[in-house]
Amino acid sequence: MTIITLLTDFGVVDTYVGVMKGVIAGIAPEARVVDLTHDVPPQDIQAGAFHLLVAYRYFPVGTVHAAIVDPGVGTERAIVAVRAGGHTFIGPDNGLLRWAVDSAGGPEQAVRVENRDYSLPEVSATFHGRDVIAPAAAHLARGLLLESLGPATGTLAGSPFPEPHAGHGVVVHVDRFGNCITNLRPPAGETVEVLGRRLPIVRTYPEVEGRQPIALVGSAGFVEIAVNGGSATKQLGIGRGTPVRAGAS
Amino acid sequence: MTIITLLTDFGVVDTYVGVMKGVIAGIAPEARVVDLTHDVPPQDIQAGAFHLLVAYRYFPVGTVHAAIVDPGVGTERAIVAVRAGGHTFIGPDNGLLRWAVDSAGGPEQAVRVENRDYSLPEVSATFHGRDVIAPAAAHLARGLLLESLGPATGTLAGSPFPEPHAGHGVVVHVDRFGNCITNLRPPAGETVEVLGRRLPIVRTYPEVEGRQPIALVGSAGFVEIAVNGGSATKQLGIGRGTPVRAGAS
Amino acid sequence: MTIITLLTDFGVVDTYVGVMKGVIAGIAPEARVVDLTHDVPPQDIQAGAFHLLVAYRYFPVGTVHAAIVDPGVGTERAIVAVRAGGHTFIGPDNGLLRWAVDSAGGPEQAVRVENRDYSLPEVSATFHGRDVIAPAAAHLARGLLLESLGPATGTLAGSPFPEPHAGHGVVVHVDRFGNCITNLRPPAGETVEVLGRRLPIVRTYPEVEGRQPIALVGSAGFVEIAVNGGSATKQLGIGRGTPVRAGAS
Repeated sequence: MTIITLLTDFGVVDTYVGVMKGVIAGIAPEARVVDLTHDVPPQDIQAGAFHLLVAYRYFPVGTVHAAIVDPGVGTERAIVAVRAGGHTFIGPDNGLLRWAVDSAGGPEQAVRVENRDYSLPEVSATFHGRDVIAPAAAHLARGLLLESLGPATGTLAGSPFPEPHAGHGVVVHVDRFGNCITNLRPPAGETVEVLGRRLPIVRTYPEVEGRQPIALVGSAGFVEIAVNGGSATKQLGIGRGTPVRAGAS
Repeated sequence: MTIITLLTDFGVVDTYVGVMKGVIAGIAPEARVVDLTHDVPPQDIQAGAFHLLVAYRYFPVGTVHAAIVDPGVGTERAIVAVRAGGHTFIGPDNGLLRWAVDSAGGPEQAVRVENRDYSLPEVSATFHGRDVIAPAAAHLARGLLLESLGPATGTLAGSPFPEPHAGHGVVVHVDRFGNCITNLRPPAGETVEVLGRRLPIVRTYPEVEGRQPIALVGSAGFVEIAVNGGSATKQLGIGRGTPVRAGAS
Repeated sequence: MTIITLLTDFGVVDTYVGVMKGVIAGIAPEARVVDLTHDVPPQDIQAGAFHLLVAYRYFPVGTVHAAIVDPGVGTERAIVAVRAGGHTFIGPDNGLLRWAVDSAGGPEQAVRVENRDYSLPEVSATFHGRDVIAPAAAHLARGLLLESLGPATGTLAGSPFPEPHAGHGVVVHVDRFGNCITNLRPPAGETVEVLGRRLPIVRTYPEVEGRQPIALVGSAGFVEIAVNGGSATKQLGIGRGTPVRAGAS
């Protein structure tokens, strides 16, 4: 029983996601579909790339990850399917998949999804998630070989975030609690510097008294900036793109 | 393995939807439940009817579609189960199901859901989704004959939207991107007129430069009014009910 | 095929819930996961306890209910697994589970979840839902004996709401329609008194003309205060914690 994960910016107010599940069920009734999130901010490739990166690794090898944040739908941008580290990723080739693919060991095999035998009979100009990606993911879940989907491709769009360099990174995500997740990973030093403030790296939120800002290694394995019982993004006035620097105490 | 889709105005902040899934799992453990949406605006039958119309057709024949937007819960309005085009629809008889049923070829068989053998032991006055519709849908998914649910009915409440007439239609839905979906279908001419403006019908969003309003045939098969990279509902000041007219260029 | 329900305050904007489902799928691929809700207000144990109470009973005996609203994550608070009335509940021992456990007949068996054989290899300080609770729930769904998870415990944190006493209760929840659900259960008299107003207990919402406040026994089996077609919380200025009293007419 193969798992197909879905990550989109479609929201769940409309039926776009439900429709994709209908298409999948018609092709691969045994596949299990799991929502990663559908609340990526509209057309925000960076946020989608972050969510895919932190989530994919908790799924069993063999999972098919379908991700759709696709400002270029209907233009000539490719849809790609990529195998990496035992996982298969499918989505628009705009950098959305790249961070996860690289984290999984880099692309072992990559194809452009162009074979119309594995799309819906009519492919619209505006909803490739339903017409191309969902059916291709379902066929992959049933065991279709990657190369059946289309020609091999040697180039993939790059990650939307740079790797940290010499201890300099950025905030890459703000979660619902206002915690600001950076692209720094441990060992990252004993402090993090942001907007001229030096914050200690602690082990747990409640370790510090009061609402003072702290840093800790969050559940995604990155250094994050937090305020115990409060919102770091509001209290410090920081957000995605804010530079951070790892340092000693 | 039969699919049951759920479409409601219950939201997902409370546990109403989860509870319906519990009831279904107790009766039909093999059925697969797929959410269409639970964010229909409270008691908005028109919005629910639109969502069901565009979504049901992407599910395999044999699917049971349970839809609940039910301002009259606890009054004498009927709950009906209707077979059309190989799909089964179940919900309150207030027009919610009608647009999808007609689109699927019209009602082939329709019954009032009144047989208490297929409801929960206690039927509350306020939550027929849990007490009547979820268990009936689960029994249908297990193969129960439609006629076992109650007496045949020859009349169903009408669709909440009129069909377009002589090229005159209305906006029937505004999606999360601010796109305004009309009830006009192609061939609908080369332009659409709205509030005195004539908009060209183009093929893809990015085909037009800048934030000028356009029309295109959307993924639901209807003509929709959009602003590339913006919100048509905000920029044009239009919304559900706004009259539109198909025309030549 | 065992069911695992999930109730959290994680929201669905991030991938926390999706990640838990990935962990579960890796351990118990046959288990079926059902979301109760993930929109418990952050760290609101009372709201979580209410949702679990009203929802758990609609699931088949044998269901594993995993609930996570956990302000103390990373501190010494225990994670417990409790069997009651044929259901298994697992979550932090902070009162979240207690109301449901008591309603199911009280704890028959309770253990502290401490055996690292049934956790992820690395347990973070901030996400025990993923690292401890999801894997333990998955192992329980596969048939693991409760006592394998850790040592028996004789004490559980108390319910976050007091039982009503001599007809005096409180509002325990406000739903998305603005209905105010109390902890009074029938027979609760013929009226409910709130802020000096005496409201009649009626059977259905539409029974009363206009937007006057009423009381009725809601779908959760509790007396709730409602305004037909309006919001009781807004119109009456009441909310969680507001005292109510059952009375004669």
